[in-house]
Amino acid sequence: MSSEITFIKDGNIASPKGFLAGASYAGIKTYSPDKLDLGILYSEKQCSSAGVFTTNKVKSPSVLLTQQHLSVQKLQAVVVTSGIANACVGTQGMTDAVEMVSLASQHVGLNEKEMAICTTGLIGVELPMALLRSTIPTIELSYSGGTLFAKSILTTDVGPKEAALAMEIDGTVITIGGTIKGAGMIHPDMATMLCFLTTDANIPQAILQPCLKEVIDETLNCITVDGDTSTNDTVLLLANGASDGTPIAAGSTELDTFKQGLAKLCSYLGEELIKTSEGAQKLIKVNVAGAASLSDARSAAKTIAGSSLVKTAIHGNDPNWGRILAALGRSNATVDENKVAININEVCVFEKGLPVPFFKEAVIKAMNNVEVLLTVQLNQGTASATALGCDLTEEYVVINSAYST
Amino acid sequence: MSSEITFIKDGNIASPKGFLAGASYAGIKTYSPDKLDLGILYSEKQCSSAGVFTTNKVKSPSVLLTQQHLSVQKLQAVVVTSGIANACVGTQGMTDAVEMVSLASQHVGLNEKEMAICTTGLIGVELPMALLRSTIPTIELSYSGGTLFAKSILTTDVGPKEAALAMEIDGTVITIGGTIKGAGMIHPDMATMLCFLTTDANIPQAILQPCLKEVIDETLNCITVDGDTSTNDTVLLLANGASDGTPIAAGSTELDTFKQGLAKLCSYLGEELIKTSEGAQKLIKVNVAGAASLSDARSAAKTIAGSSLVKTAIHGNDPNWGRILAALGRSNATVDENKVAININEVCVFEKGLPVPFFKEAVIKAMNNVEVLLTVQLNQGTASATALGCDLTEEYVVINSAYST
Repeated sequence: MSSEITFIKDGNIASPKGFLAGASYAGIKTYSPDKLDLGILYSEKQCSSAGVFTTNKVKSPSVLLTQQHLSVQKLQAVVVTSGIANACVGTQGMTDAVEMVSLASQHVGLNEKEMAICTTGLIGVELPMALLRSTIPTIELSYSGGTLFAKSILTTDVGPKEAALAMEIDGTVITIGGTIKGAGMIHPDMATMLCFLTTDANIPQAILQPCLKEVIDETLNCITVDGDTSTNDTVLLLANGASDGTPIAAGSTELDTFKQGLAKLCSYLGEELIKTSEGAQKLIKVNVAGAASLSDARSAAKTIAGSSLVKTAIHGNDPNWGRILAALGRSNATVDENKVAININEVCVFEKGLPVPFFKEAVIKAMNNVEVLLTVQLNQGTASATALGCDLTEEYVVINSAYST
Repeated sequence: MSSEITFIKDGNIASPKGFLAGASYAGIKTYSPDKLDLGILYSEKQCSSAGVFTTNKVKSPSVLLTQQHLSVQKLQAVVVTSGIANACVGTQGMTDAVEMVSLASQHVGLNEKEMAICTTGLIGVELPMALLRSTIPTIELSYSGGTLFAKSILTTDVGPKEAALAMEIDGTVITIGGTIKGAGMIHPDMATMLCFLTTDANIPQAILQPCLKEVIDETLNCITVDGDTSTNDTVLLLANGASDGTPIAAGSTELDTFKQGLAKLCSYLGEELIKTSEGAQKLIKVNVAGAASLSDARSAAKTIAGSSLVKTAIHGNDPNWGRILAALGRSNATVDENKVAININEVCVFEKGLPVPFFKEAVIKAMNNVEVLLTVQLNQGTASATALGCDLTEEYVVINSAYST
């Protein structure tokens, strides 16, 4: 029997046993009361560690340094700053990343290689090291610091996005916590997304990376805001084993349960990210079923969710299924228009190569909602996938026309 | 010595010898004085014919029928209607395309297989055949009908886009004319773009298709408005040989001259299309040089020109080169950020992995122009390419949120 997976009230990144967090204001982001731009996440024990990173060929030295530490060492902490990406600043970028890691690891009493670093914000600007030098030592870690950390990683996000859930695995209650930041440049390959995941589950290092990759591919790599991919995207998963459960084995039902929990958390964080992304007023959920392969299903779902014409139509409550079909046709999926069925919020609008007459006003009314569901049946096979996107609004243009200047 | 290629004053699709055109109003588009939605282009002689079509897997029967005729027969005429795409309407789509071709070919006295058909507009709506049956026979063809034809193919375009140019090839003056329509859904693989090209040059059927493909790949397949690709995109080139010149041979300098002329015309039409595309206020020209291969150069140029974040930055006169570099990094091109140089309107803003200090107000002022030039040097090889795009504006969202409803 599969264990029940339940969200924890006010859960966050520090909900799993043995995790502490804290944050401070260094002065990188424009000041306002309650603003934070520097955070540390810390585990009392060394962690099995896994990461998924941006596929952009231009990478921040913060990403490169974290990848390097991850390849040689189990991690135990992460330092994050928001407002400046630490990307495209020449060799100074790696110098600063190394110093920031050094300062943070000294502060919490770790070896430098046990510390990961993430940065997010403007490209081409150097980190203000004097501010960081004076602020890092002031960060206080606590078991209740999860939300402070969640706030410290934000850029243009509306607010912190965090959650935790619990499940029983082999008689032991384990917890997974997470926080995510957007808000623009979100695309399947994770643009300017930082996501931190923690768990007290006991999972060997060797199986954690494939587990994270599999879950991210079906969740956070299936969301899109505007098709752009950043230089800094990072998802980190730290598993400290503090629940004291039996180690989870490769190929076990226990691992399946853990993956289900992780996927549920990542889906939730992905939805929260989209709902509060730049200028978005609606969440678009695209379910593609009956695809010839998993990659077909994902390509179809992501292409529809990312189409500017679909996004503007949904912004205007326009049941313009022609745009959905046109996007489908330019995806990599095998498509035969005579076999395709399209539903908008559960109303069938196209089937077997023909428009289905529908009461337009009712569909328009149903679309006038914060969540719009597009269901596409390809009738080519049995694979399915879900992609999340958002509508394209005038506000998106306004926000992004006036970002750095 | 290469022949001079010059634009003809008030040139259009009927400027080359032996071409006639005409148009009428069938009642498909909302009526306004001077509105046209049905056109015929006609050559007095059979033409060497070539076409480049949408890569969307969902294709209008109009595209399929034209491809079929092109594969068995030299074309002599084209019938076009605008307002309805004749796509995704089941078997009725092919029935209507066949009837429309039959009506038009009867009207001008040709065999059906000598007639191509193009349709553009809303997807999922059947053509009003009664209106077409009564209107097609009223179309009057004339040598001065080029602009009427150019008007009859428009949908949300601001106005007709047409030109013609002349050059001397082997002692004979030959003319190439063309017209194009957009206005949304324009992407490298030619979304909802119809483009008609005519010439009185004497070019054998066998070499016309590769010639057209080569020119389109470097011109009209390098423009992007919003990344969406339509079901109906078509470029047709008809060469009727009416200039009575010596046949142009494969691999000859004469063919090179013709290609230069064709490319010049297509580049001009592409720029006009972008300038007047949905909501666009600025033309973005992206020149990529020093790429490792032609496909690298094109991928880099198109990815930058199509980035929502680059497009919004340019809309806001924001010299945010970080977004240009981030888009470059997610293209398929080989990129080493330490070798890249980026210029915005000829001011160098990034070089050798580092931002270059520049007087921001001057660049902002230079960007406040209807045309913005982004130059990217990759320093990887010798290949280069140009892509054209436009800024992303609030108006684009407004237009596309309220299209069909």
